[in-house]
Amino acid sequence: MKIKLTSGKTIETESGESVLTSLKRAGIFLTSSCGGKGTCGKCKIIVQSGDVESKSHMKLSKDEIHQGYALACMTSPVGDIVVDIPKESILTVEGKIVTGKSEDLLALLNSTGADIEPLSERIVLKLPPPSLDDNISDLERLKRELIANGLGCLRVPFRFLANLSRTVREEDWNITLSAIHTDDCYEIINIFPGSRKVPQYGLAVDIGTTTVVVYLIDLTDGSLVDVASIYNSQIRFGDDVITRIVNATENNELRNLHRAIITDINELASILVSNHKIDIESIDTLVVAGNTTMMHFFFNLDPYAIREEPYIPTANTFPLSHAGELGIKISRNVPVYAFPCVASYVGGDIVAGILAAGVHKEEDICIFIDIGTNGEIVIGNSEWLMAAACSAGPCFEGSGIKHGMRATDGAIENVKIDRHSLEIEIKVIGDDTQPTGICGSGMIDVIAEMFLSGILDQKGKLQKDISDRVREGEDGLEFVVHYGESKDIVLAEPDIENLIRAKAAIYAGFATLLKEVGFSFDDVGKIYIAGGFGRFLDIDKAIMLGLLPEMPKEKFQYLGNTSITGAYLCILSRKLRNEAEEISRKMTYLELSVSNSFMDEYVSGLFIPHTNIDAFPGVKKLMER
Amino acid sequence: MKIKLTSGKTIETESGESVLTSLKRAGIFLTSSCGGKGTCGKCKIIVQSGDVESKSHMKLSKDEIHQGYALACMTSPVGDIVVDIPKESILTVEGKIVTGKSEDLLALLNSTGADIEPLSERIVLKLPPPSLDDNISDLERLKRELIANGLGCLRVPFRFLANLSRTVREEDWNITLSAIHTDDCYEIINIFPGSRKVPQYGLAVDIGTTTVVVYLIDLTDGSLVDVASIYNSQIRFGDDVITRIVNATENNELRNLHRAIITDINELASILVSNHKIDIESIDTLVVAGNTTMMHFFFNLDPYAIREEPYIPTANTFPLSHAGELGIKISRNVPVYAFPCVASYVGGDIVAGILAAGVHKEEDICIFIDIGTNGEIVIGNSEWLMAAACSAGPCFEGSGIKHGMRATDGAIENVKIDRHSLEIEIKVIGDDTQPTGICGSGMIDVIAEMFLSGILDQKGKLQKDISDRVREGEDGLEFVVHYGESKDIVLAEPDIENLIRAKAAIYAGFATLLKEVGFSFDDVGKIYIAGGFGRFLDIDKAIMLGLLPEMPKEKFQYLGNTSITGAYLCILSRKLRNEAEEISRKMTYLELSVSNSFMDEYVSGLFIPHTNIDAFPGVKKLMER
Repeated sequence: MKIKLTSGKTIETESGESVLTSLKRAGIFLTSSCGGKGTCGKCKIIVQSGDVESKSHMKLSKDEIHQGYALACMTSPVGDIVVDIPKESILTVEGKIVTGKSEDLLALLNSTGADIEPLSERIVLKLPPPSLDDNISDLERLKRELIANGLGCLRVPFRFLANLSRTVREEDWNITLSAIHTDDCYEIINIFPGSRKVPQYGLAVDIGTTTVVVYLIDLTDGSLVDVASIYNSQIRFGDDVITRIVNATENNELRNLHRAIITDINELASILVSNHKIDIESIDTLVVAGNTTMMHFFFNLDPYAIREEPYIPTANTFPLSHAGELGIKISRNVPVYAFPCVASYVGGDIVAGILAAGVHKEEDICIFIDIGTNGEIVIGNSEWLMAAACSAGPCFEGSGIKHGMRATDGAIENVKIDRHSLEIEIKVIGDDTQPTGICGSGMIDVIAEMFLSGILDQKGKLQKDISDRVREGEDGLEFVVHYGESKDIVLAEPDIENLIRAKAAIYAGFATLLKEVGFSFDDVGKIYIAGGFGRFLDIDKAIMLGLLPEMPKEKFQYLGNTSITGAYLCILSRKLRNEAEEISRKMTYLELSVSNSFMDEYVSGLFIPHTNIDAFPGVKKLMER
Repeated sequence: MKIKLTSGKTIETESGESVLTSLKRAGIFLTSSCGGKGTCGKCKIIVQSGDVESKSHMKLSKDEIHQGYALACMTSPVGDIVVDIPKESILTVEGKIVTGKSEDLLALLNSTGADIEPLSERIVLKLPPPSLDDNISDLERLKRELIANGLGCLRVPFRFLANLSRTVREEDWNITLSAIHTDDCYEIINIFPGSRKVPQYGLAVDIGTTTVVVYLIDLTDGSLVDVASIYNSQIRFGDDVITRIVNATENNELRNLHRAIITDINELASILVSNHKIDIESIDTLVVAGNTTMMHFFFNLDPYAIREEPYIPTANTFPLSHAGELGIKISRNVPVYAFPCVASYVGGDIVAGILAAGVHKEEDICIFIDIGTNGEIVIGNSEWLMAAACSAGPCFEGSGIKHGMRATDGAIENVKIDRHSLEIEIKVIGDDTQPTGICGSGMIDVIAEMFLSGILDQKGKLQKDISDRVREGEDGLEFVVHYGESKDIVLAEPDIENLIRAKAAIYAGFATLLKEVGFSFDDVGKIYIAGGFGRFLDIDKAIMLGLLPEMPKEKFQYLGNTSITGAYLCILSRKLRNEAEEISRKMTYLELSVSNSFMDEYVSGLFIPHTNIDAFPGVKKLMER
């Protein structure tokens, strides 16, 4: 059987196979937040001709069904079919790589007082050539010289020997070694003929659940040469970590999830290397930060126990591995250093974040929050650190929200509602004036604005009689954020419930952690916001929603992607790498999902802004006005 | 173009390619001692029809050329040809595996006073299951338990993590680890669910230039379960190490030489494992001993500098590697421990030999000689050890000798010449009464007997007028050892010269080493003879030839394959492994090829038995008789 696409391509399909799977095999990836379970309704296709069998029409309106819409994951062809894929169903592949410009990371590095001591070092040596009187082996000759140079403990992995004899002789016994200092011992990584102190590069990688970012760093001066980023291709196995773990475990997709992330890193690395005409052999080290599940996928480790109580990862600290055994296409001996994680839901990205924010050096009590696909919170200072994951879910990234989308072109990112006329003003990301959905900051704006305008009550219920924009939709009441030509962009009551649950979970996280250590929000000196989502966030609106605590605005600081910043710092400084390891050891993890205190706080947070309105005196004042 | 074999097979050939190469590609290996240079004359074929181009007819008689004989390595087809391959040209593949019976190695192990402490240990643990209050990762849980069990230094290689989370949960947190103790640290190798203290096996491997032997050892009680051996398939790249190094270097065959030895080991291991119905996962360790060149091929290391002055190997001591990275088909994490070598021409097989012979424990000065494909000599005792290689060449194994062959079926192994009638009596190995060649011990016999009968003079020249069996051959005078139906077995003057040069080199080795340390043969308490060749050796005849020094017969002891015995000892005892490493560090290597003293001794040895006949009083008496 064949699936003919209106775009021209024809795909062979196997009997009983879903259209989603057939497309995936052909390299065409549809948005599929639920991982192909028919529950997210994002993999819509239009069957133009031919017979299909559909297991479910959930998430499709009658009109849509009439027009031939079907869910690709729930639909199998019975014979040859012709299919049209709407633009919004396609997971953008073309042009999804965004390469950025350097930021001033060196200033941050300098502010830590750390010298540039890259994770991997280059050692230039001139060996005395062998003679009949000095006929020890090449390896012994090398070791003798290194020991004479003061390198006490020395480890030489077997794979290092492969080209030793040719290389030492190539430039008359002048050689350069690259070595990594680990566990108080030098491990020899690579050997080059001649003197090759420069060039020496490193790759710092942040494996986000949604986005993968790679920094190309010049290890000789610490400069950031270039940045490349890509959507994590694992998205085709689900938007959130839990769906991906289920896919890995129940659908035997671990290997493919592993390959997806390795392929992404290879793609970014090859772009960076070719753009800057860098010899791949100049790349000496790879440092990776990511959440615990991402690290498991990266290392091809079975993550299934992460998902089940008592939520146990295979490892939180990962032994040094090398590029070759992971399939990373740089010199195969290059060491891969992974940030240590803390627990199943507080990963190396958070440890990197604390390092980058410098929470572990602060006297004041700080809150650190990373709202990405997951929501992780750390509270602490130079003396103690306590962390939790508040399972907010990825709704702020558009997942589970009818017209939700990420903060990319076409997303409504900013919304204002006139208090009197109730007229609405929207701001859309990109030049395309026609919005295609609404991103996290837009959702927060809409809810806060509706709340202040009286369109939404404290319980998150839409008020039908206040605005014409409130109407009956397929999923109950909905608010039309934008009247479109082909479709309206709405926020429906189930979406609002989702968002309120998410904000309640995050706020409850703050409150529970503080209570656990006997402090209150008044004791908090700073609140650091990390993660891509924070970039468009309007702090006032977030407070109004009850997502963030009401604190003086100067206490809030947006830091951006602290995971990659931490990776940058570690690849350049041994001191900071030790600090990162210290952070991971010091951080106490609190499992919120079984905390009664958290549940109480959570339930209190299911109001706008909060059941305890006195915690939000500013919002209270606005409401009274 | 096609080569049709009379045996039925048809082989595609490429233009300009030698028949030897075409056959090799098709998996048909001919004897080719010189590695395809046209100088050994062993890869004879008969071209029955079709046109060929031959670069050389060296080593072929006029008769043979007339009959269509050609050297496969020097001959390329011009069009389709039909070829017959004589039986003696084919490198025996079928039935080349000889599996032996257990010897009493345990007695030897016990005599060293060593306990059974296998190189790899099994550690049975019951881990406390995780809970929400004890939610460290699986790896940390395992480490915590091991540290509580007193294992201080602990290394966990990355590849160990792969199945950790499944395995610990499989039998309710009851697990068995296999670990290797190395560099004062435990390295975790493998993990099994449940309690698996037994069965636990190890493989000890001797990689000889000619023969590969594998012992399957029960590590729990030290018993030798079975033995398997095979000809080293590298023989198709040359009989001796030098030819193979040339092939590796100049013909880019390193990878194939590496694969050949790995395939041999895999073949033997799989036979042993299937014969004894052993779960491949029960094999915990592999210990390998071999000469330095063999170790380089085994590890896929470029051996080219071994061959050129000042004769430098890549390494003498090899970092621990694992089966997976070498392509050995047992559990991929199984550690591969290689015996340390001493120098380019004194390898781990000799270190193993000294360990097995116990020379390093003796008060008396001992000589240890391993006459295999190479000839290595060690002199010393518990205080010092000095080693040399005497580059005797593999002529005692049949290489470079017109009708030479290894000590297998059809070889003349024993020769007697009646002093009066000059009638000759031969003994042939195997049931086949028709001899096909002559092996090392047979050659020594013939020369000694001819010498005593006056057929051969002291310089190694045949005396034409003494015996009818001395006749003009293609290569000058030759002695007919056996009149055959299809061919006569002869020893020609060039063969005799070869053998005299070899014995002179070995004797000069003894003498030079002794002189270097200021001792004489009278100071030597024992002389240990190791290697396959020694098995059929008649000590008296070897003394008569001047190969061995004239000493009381009780001082000679034949030990067999001490390389595999040493490997057996090391796999079972940590103490003996430390001793082996101590032996390799202690042993001084003397490079004979640049020693004037050696050259003088060598020239003196080019007589039968020796220029200094007073060193052989017994032989002198016999000569006078």
